[in-house]
Amino acid sequence: MKVHNYLNTEAVEDAPGVLHRVVIGADDGAPTFIMRVFEVKSGSSTPFHSHSWEHEVFVLSGKGIVKGREKERLLGEGTVVFVAPNEDHCFINTGSGPLRFICVIPLSRTPIE
Amino acid sequence: MKVHNYLNTEAVEDAPGVLHRVVIGADDGAPTFIMRVFEVKSGSSTPFHSHSWEHEVFVLSGKGIVKGREKERLLGEGTVVFVAPNEDHCFINTGSGPLRFICVIPLSRTPIE
Repeated sequence: MKVHNYLNTEAVEDAPGVLHRVVIGADDGAPTFIMRVFEVKSGSSTPFHSHSWEHEVFVLSGKGIVKGREKERLLGEGTVVFVAPNEDHCFINTGSGPLRFICVIPLSRTPIE
Repeated sequence: MKVHNYLNTEAVEDAPGVLHRVVIGADDGAPTFIMRVFEVKSGSSTPFHSHSWEHEVFVLSGKGIVKGREKERLLGEGTVVFVAPNEDHCFINTGSGPLRFICVIPLSRTPIE
């Protein structure tokens, strides 16, 4: 069993103003999926893109929108987002503080047959 | 894409004082893992047990402990817990308010080979 505060995991900046921490990963023995915590600075956004794996997201704090190909939806504390494989998406911080969310992805990141 | 507030999902009581909501499940098209949100009342606990699938947990609010076979660890907002397959565990609310946490499990719940 691994028990820790997520802030003790080193943060990586993978886009301007976008930090993520892999709080449960393959190195911990996770066999199926991994948990990351994202922090997007005010005015910043994750890239608008798609990929073959899904996202399961839970917003911890902050305000923003999740943008798809056809529409945008509001995000706030307690919002849950399921992004299916191959769906376009990005997460934009429209608030004044950080937008923090959990984002779980499959370990394999391979296409879903 | 599915976007909703987790509180809009019906809660199920699966032990005394223990509610859970399946906020992203197989019905949403989740192909690999599902996300649940648990709420444990003050003084209540999930069952002490083990099973062949893993848990990936993030504590949203409250105070408690996670108990394993050999020791107990404190839980608070921002605590992350990885429970490996076949590890004994339970989550006990030792605070005065609700203990709320996300718990992600594989869709298959089959033994890990």
